Amino acid sequence: MTTDVVELLRAALGDRVDTGDAGLEAARADKSGHAAAGRPLAVVHAASVDDVRETLRIASATGTPVVPRGAGTGLAGAANTGTGEISLSLRAMDRVLEVRGDDLLAVVEPGILNADLNAHLAPYGLWWAPDPASRAISTVGGNIATGAGGLLCAKYGVVRDAVLGLDVVLADGRLLRLGHRSVKGVTGYDLAALMIGSEGTLGVVVGATLKLRRLVPGEVCTLAATFPHVAAAASAAAAVTAAGVQPAIMELMDAVSLSAVHALLDLPAPLPGVAQLTIQTDGPAAREEAEAIAAVLTTAGGTVALSSDPDEGERLLRIRRSMHPAMERLGTTLIEDVSVPRSALPAMFAEIARIEREHGVAIPTVAHAGDGNLHPNFVFAGPDVPARVWEAADELFRAALRLGGTLTGEHGIGVLKRRWLADELGADQWQLQRQIKRVFDPAGILNPGKVFLDPVEASPAPVETSH
Amino acid sequence: MTTDVVELLRAALGDRVDTGDAGLEAARADKSGHAAAGRPLAVVHAASVDDVRETLRIASATGTPVVPRGAGTGLAGAANTGTGEISLSLRAMDRVLEVRGDDLLAVVEPGILNADLNAHLAPYGLWWAPDPASRAISTVGGNIATGAGGLLCAKYGVVRDAVLGLDVVLADGRLLRLGHRSVKGVTGYDLAALMIGSEGTLGVVVGATLKLRRLVPGEVCTLAATFPHVAAAASAAAAVTAAGVQPAIMELMDAVSLSAVHALLDLPAPLPGVAQLTIQTDGPAAREEAEAIAAVLTTAGGTVALSSDPDEGERLLRIRRSMHPAMERLGTTLIEDVSVPRSALPAMFAEIARIEREHGVAIPTVAHAGDGNLHPNFVFAGPDVPARVWEAADELFRAALRLGGTLTGEHGIGVLKRRWLADELGADQWQLQRQIKRVFDPAGILNPGKVFLDPVEASPAPVETSH
Repeated sequence: MTTDVVELLRAALGDRVDTGDAGLEAARADKSGHAAAGRPLAVVHAASVDDVRETLRIASATGTPVVPRGAGTGLAGAANTGTGEISLSLRAMDRVLEVRGDDLLAVVEPGILNADLNAHLAPYGLWWAPDPASRAISTVGGNIATGAGGLLCAKYGVVRDAVLGLDVVLADGRLLRLGHRSVKGVTGYDLAALMIGSEGTLGVVVGATLKLRRLVPGEVCTLAATFPHVAAAASAAAAVTAAGVQPAIMELMDAVSLSAVHALLDLPAPLPGVAQLTIQTDGPAAREEAEAIAAVLTTAGGTVALSSDPDEGERLLRIRRSMHPAMERLGTTLIEDVSVPRSALPAMFAEIARIEREHGVAIPTVAHAGDGNLHPNFVFAGPDVPARVWEAADELFRAALRLGGTLTGEHGIGVLKRRWLADELGADQWQLQRQIKRVFDPAGILNPGKVFLDPVEASPAPVETSH
Repeated sequence: MTTDVVELLRAALGDRVDTGDAGLEAARADKSGHAAAGRPLAVVHAASVDDVRETLRIASATGTPVVPRGAGTGLAGAANTGTGEISLSLRAMDRVLEVRGDDLLAVVEPGILNADLNAHLAPYGLWWAPDPASRAISTVGGNIATGAGGLLCAKYGVVRDAVLGLDVVLADGRLLRLGHRSVKGVTGYDLAALMIGSEGTLGVVVGATLKLRRLVPGEVCTLAATFPHVAAAASAAAAVTAAGVQPAIMELMDAVSLSAVHALLDLPAPLPGVAQLTIQTDGPAAREEAEAIAAVLTTAGGTVALSSDPDEGERLLRIRRSMHPAMERLGTTLIEDVSVPRSALPAMFAEIARIEREHGVAIPTVAHAGDGNLHPNFVFAGPDVPARVWEAADELFRAALRLGGTLTGEHGIGVLKRRWLADELGADQWQLQRQIKRVFDPAGILNPGKVFLDPVEASPAPVETSH
């Protein structure tokens, strides 16, 4: 049977079917630090919509699970592919099919990297606003499948705000065109919106009509403000939002994060305990907004520097962007992703401090403070997430929910947060979402075991190892 | 059985159940000019979430159809309630439960009028951006149920961009909390987005967490430009978008519309054939943007006036807002709502001219030219839509689809456009949407016969009369 599937794929798709060791091994994992048990049957490198349809027809006919994959940069394990499954890579479908400055839209294949798309759009004076920190290495299709966020979301929106239409192949190989090309459109249910963030469980995105913006004219101002402790920095960030000024970017780094990055980049060590806010304003009022923000930060106890030099701005943001490599030097990390209402940012940092204390774990944390999205990093030795880390993470999730927040702001549920999904959705909504999944994929071959921890699989837990 | 349902409702809800002639008669119709055949069993004026749940429990237990209703200002017949049905009015649930300037959100009940909400928010320096032309008389819940648009959408987004979370009662009376309070959130499927524009067929919106904006600082500039014919005005509008300037409002009126409004308002008659663009810019660069737009319009052959006087701006916009009363003086109107990519606006106006010619009907048209949404008005004598008008409308829809557009930009499908739904969605997607409907409402009691023209009902057509 297993051989049959691979033979069928090979007969239909030839050398776009990869069964080599390196390819199969790479498809087991994403960037979450987790990997599926075992190896997939094959990796299909789709080069066209027809390749995707053919793969799904074969998968449906043989009852074989299919796991769609972009660049494998996810942080929740949604693209991890294991024993008996087909990894369906969209990475080679990376063409820009259409750019319309007059309609502010682009039509693209899903495998194009976010940064490559924006490089392509820049000469037109256009950009696609979603900017996950992974933008240099993550695909537009993956951004859509996870509902990715980024640094600019409070001012420029999330992926959901930046997609007009999607072409989607269903589990049985049928091709649907969802959404529209016009600014407005309310014909029938908004299935394009439903598809965004569905993590490959409802269909495979094979094309996207993206809503573009004009490049923002004018200068960019950058502020860096240090605070004696993270609580003060979090309060200052909430005060900026409450003051009614809208930064393009507002990033917070706590003391452990800041020290680790300074060490990585050979910068002078910051004073112990010091946390930092890095803020950018843009557009025609960039300078006035930066000055207003500087006043709020100073009042909140910050030591503030303001620059309109692009190189200095880039240098400061590089410190924020070096967080992940800096953490990797400290040990193995579990990167979390809770999001809370912006006013609750100080309270969430207080909860993190409490959890650190009570569980005896370090949780270096950075936050997209402009939108209330925190990335607490659990750092530990060795390949496996220790039980005490999961216990601390459990407390973290519950604290976020208590504060009116959510389990995941931009990474998705994947395999890592399935256990907590019903806690946030409630039993009725969880069940309803399962039924919607069945409408799209009655045989359950699309990314099974992701997002939903099926009750029939719940005991014993699905096999999943770390790497 | 009929009496039983009303008795059950009355026992549970007392005098919030209205069976008086005037109430039943009013519930048959919305503002589309169409009415359901017969009268509903009762109008329930829900005063609380529990009232809604109780109504739906009784409806489910007795298999009675329920038609949710806001202020009855819809233009597609979605709230029309007929024989054997319960009209469930949310209009009395009109409280603002929470306003958070620091989190830029408000929690409201569905029955509050859009304009009343914005009057409530103004002292906080906040607003909810969706601004349908009906904002003074339409409810927030109705705006959400239809996915309403308005004048400001190209710059400030549609309803879908302005809702964070929804509380929804399902057909069986269960209450779900969908979405989130944070800027970001990707936990599970985005059912709040699915609910937006579902026209009461999936659930009843009983609460909404709305995404707010700060009031836009600075002056507002208004431009009025006249053109010798509508084709020139449409080309000029497309040229403004293509030039990369973003107006807050850009409205187009063709010659018949403009003349009718001038007559209504006792203004001097415009020259024959003359069409008009009314444009506003706002924000810190309002003046520069207005001047850039004036240059584009002049190059495109327009005669342009620019003003930063708020009274003059209001006077000019009043001409646009008087379209519907002006049309009512000409006869009975069928207001259509196609939307096309902005670059296709001139082509869509050419199609309208062709259809007018070939079908011998007048189709006065206004357009939200900034976003490509057109409202062609079919004007006729007497209460019933003549067959030739439906034939012309049919051609209009097909032309919009050919140009990459959609049947409805902001009014919804309701009963008026069910016949064309599958033309836009395709048979596979139409079927999938029907299955999603069944997940939410397996017994089919929520607004049956709206949006989807059920195949089992398709021949003969459901009874529907005009009034």
